[in-house]
Amino acid sequence: MIRSHGYAALERGGDLVAFDFERGSMGVSDILVDIKFCGVCHSDLHAVDNDWGFHSYPLVPGHEIVGMVTDTGSHVTRFQIGDWVGIGSIIDSCRTCSPCEAGLEIYCDEGATPSFGGADRSGQMTFGGFSNKYVVSESYAVRIPSELDPARAAPLLCAGITTFSPFNKAQLKSGDRVGIVGLGGLGHLAIKWARAFGADVVVFTTSPDKAADALALGACEVIISSDPEQMAHQTKRFNFIMDTVSAPHDVSGYLDFLKLDGVLFLTGMPAQAAAISPMQLAWGRRVVTSSMTGGIAETQEMLEFAARHDIAADVEVLPIAQLNTVFDRLRRNDVRFRFVVEMAALKGGIA
Amino acid sequence: MIRSHGYAALERGGDLVAFDFERGSMGVSDILVDIKFCGVCHSDLHAVDNDWGFHSYPLVPGHEIVGMVTDTGSHVTRFQIGDWVGIGSIIDSCRTCSPCEAGLEIYCDEGATPSFGGADRSGQMTFGGFSNKYVVSESYAVRIPSELDPARAAPLLCAGITTFSPFNKAQLKSGDRVGIVGLGGLGHLAIKWARAFGADVVVFTTSPDKAADALALGACEVIISSDPEQMAHQTKRFNFIMDTVSAPHDVSGYLDFLKLDGVLFLTGMPAQAAAISPMQLAWGRRVVTSSMTGGIAETQEMLEFAARHDIAADVEVLPIAQLNTVFDRLRRNDVRFRFVVEMAALKGGIA
Repeated sequence: MIRSHGYAALERGGDLVAFDFERGSMGVSDILVDIKFCGVCHSDLHAVDNDWGFHSYPLVPGHEIVGMVTDTGSHVTRFQIGDWVGIGSIIDSCRTCSPCEAGLEIYCDEGATPSFGGADRSGQMTFGGFSNKYVVSESYAVRIPSELDPARAAPLLCAGITTFSPFNKAQLKSGDRVGIVGLGGLGHLAIKWARAFGADVVVFTTSPDKAADALALGACEVIISSDPEQMAHQTKRFNFIMDTVSAPHDVSGYLDFLKLDGVLFLTGMPAQAAAISPMQLAWGRRVVTSSMTGGIAETQEMLEFAARHDIAADVEVLPIAQLNTVFDRLRRNDVRFRFVVEMAALKGGIA
Repeated sequence: MIRSHGYAALERGGDLVAFDFERGSMGVSDILVDIKFCGVCHSDLHAVDNDWGFHSYPLVPGHEIVGMVTDTGSHVTRFQIGDWVGIGSIIDSCRTCSPCEAGLEIYCDEGATPSFGGADRSGQMTFGGFSNKYVVSESYAVRIPSELDPARAAPLLCAGITTFSPFNKAQLKSGDRVGIVGLGGLGHLAIKWARAFGADVVVFTTSPDKAADALALGACEVIISSDPEQMAHQTKRFNFIMDTVSAPHDVSGYLDFLKLDGVLFLTGMPAQAAAISPMQLAWGRRVVTSSMTGGIAETQEMLEFAARHDIAADVEVLPIAQLNTVFDRLRRNDVRFRFVVEMAALKGGIA
C-alpha cells in the first residue's frame, strides 16, 4: 500500500487539515508520482463547500497535478522514473464505450473516475493532488514537456485544457476575432491560446483596472461590459466568444455579437440556466455550446502546443501549508491569475 | 408596371380581403411569375397579427410561392417562359457581403429583402404570394423539378428548406438517430428528410393520436412526451434532435437525450427564451443552435434532393377565395400537415 500525506476537508466547508491516507497498491500499468505542484481551481472550492451536492468527507481536493515519476509498474511503457508528468481531472474510465474509444475519456458513458472526490472502478474514494504521492495508470497521465516550468504547467491540466479544447475543436484560425468574457484563471489562458491560434482577441470585463493586464496578455482591445455605449458597438463582430464568468450574468446579450455561424462557448458554468432566444440563434445560425476539460490525448497535444508557443499559466506559488489562506483568497477572488501550491514541505510526511 | 391581384390584411388581425396593387416594372434580370400555388405558413399568420411588431398594412402575406414564368428580362439566362419556378422567403439581398458571397443570402449583413411585408432595395413594400403575379430577379428564384407536384412543392420553399438545411449542414448519415419534437408542418417534413438521409427517426409528440401518422411518415418509434415513464428512457440516445414546437415548452429536457456532440436544433421559434443549463451542454459537449431558411443555392439543392427521394409536403389545397377559412383553421391547428392555396380563381383578377 502506498501511504500518502495531504490536506483534507473533514466536513463541508471546513478548513483543510493535515490528513494521512492510503492510495492502494501499484498495478502493473501504474506509475507512482511524487507530487511537486498542484494548481488550485474553483472546482476544488466548490467541492469543499459541496456546492454540487455530491461530495463526501474527508475530501482531499486538487486536480491540476504535476510531479515526478518515482516508480513504474512492470507493464509501463510510456514513462520512466524521473519523468515529469501531469494528472488532470480524471484518472480512469471504462475504456470501451464510444467516447473512450474516440479518446474523449472525460465523456465516458459509464462515467469517468475523477482524480478526487469520486469512487474509482473498485469503489474506493479518490483523493486529490493536495498531497505528496499519487498512483495512476500510465494511460491517464500526460508528459510535461521539458520547456515548461512545472509549477506554471500545473493549471494547464484543468484550466488550460478547458480553454484550449474549444478553440482547438473549432479550428480557430488567423484573422478570426475572439471575445473572452472575464479575465480570471480561465480567461487569462484563453487569451494566450486564442492569440497562439492567430486570432485577434477582445476582452470583455466589468473591471476597468484589468484592461492593462488584458492588453499585456495579448488582447488587442478591452470592452468594459458594464458600459452600454461600448457594448452597443459589438454586433456581429465575433467568430467565437468564450464566456468564462461563473457569476450569474446575462449571457444572451453576447449572442448578437456573433457573426454568421459564430459560437458562444460557456466555460464559466454558472449554476443558473442561460436564457437563450431561439430567434437570436436563428438570425446568425449561431451556436451555444460548452464542454468539460478534454481527452487525455488532447491534453498531451495542448501541453506540446503550450511548449511550442511558450504558454503557461501566470501563477502565485505558495507552500501547501498555506492552503487555507489560498482558499480564503480564492473566495475573495484575490488571485492573479492562478494559485499553485508546492508540496516540498510534505516530502517527509506531515509532522 | 405589372398589376397584380391578391388578398391583403388591411389592418392588424384583420380578415384577408381582395386587393389590387402594382409590382413595379420588370428589370432586365427579372422574371414575371404567374403564381399557381402558395403554401400557408404560421409566419403568414404572425405577420397578419403583427406578433413580431414590425409589420405594416395593407399586408399581402405568402412566401411559399410556386408558379410559371410568363416573361423574362433581356438578361435572364437561367429561366424560360413556361418554366415552373419557386420563390421563398426572400427576393433580394445586398449581394456583396460575406454571407451573400457565401450563398447564404438570408443572412445578408444589410438585411435580405423579404418576399412580403418588408421594404425592397428601393424602399417599396413587398407584397407576397397570395396574389396572381410576382416579379423577381432570376437570382432569387429556384427551379421546380418536373418530378415534383407543384402544389406539394410549395411548402418546400419555407417549411422544407427550414428543416432540410439543418440536417444537410450537419451531414446527417445512415445510422444516426434523430428525434423530431412536434408533428406539424415542419415536423412532418423533418421526418421525411431525416429518413432520406438514412437516419432512424423517433418522433416526440404530446398527442397519442398522431402516432400512426408519424409511423406512416417514416418514424421507427413514437414517444409520448407527456409520459414521464417514456421520457425517462431517452438519455444519450440521439445524435440530433429537431424541436419544431412553437408553443412554450421545456426545451432543456431534450439536452440530456443527446449523445456526445449531439445537436439540439430549435426550429419552432417559441417567443420565450429557452432555459439552457451550461452543465447540461458541458456533460456531452452538446450544441444548441437554430437557423433561418437557407441560401438560394441550398434551396435549389433541397428541391433536387426532394425530387430524387420523392419527397413533398402532405397538403390540403383550397382555392384562395377560402383564405380566411384557411387562416381560421390554422389558428386552431386544424391542418394535416400544410395548407396550400390555389390561385386559379385569380387568373382574371378579382371581380
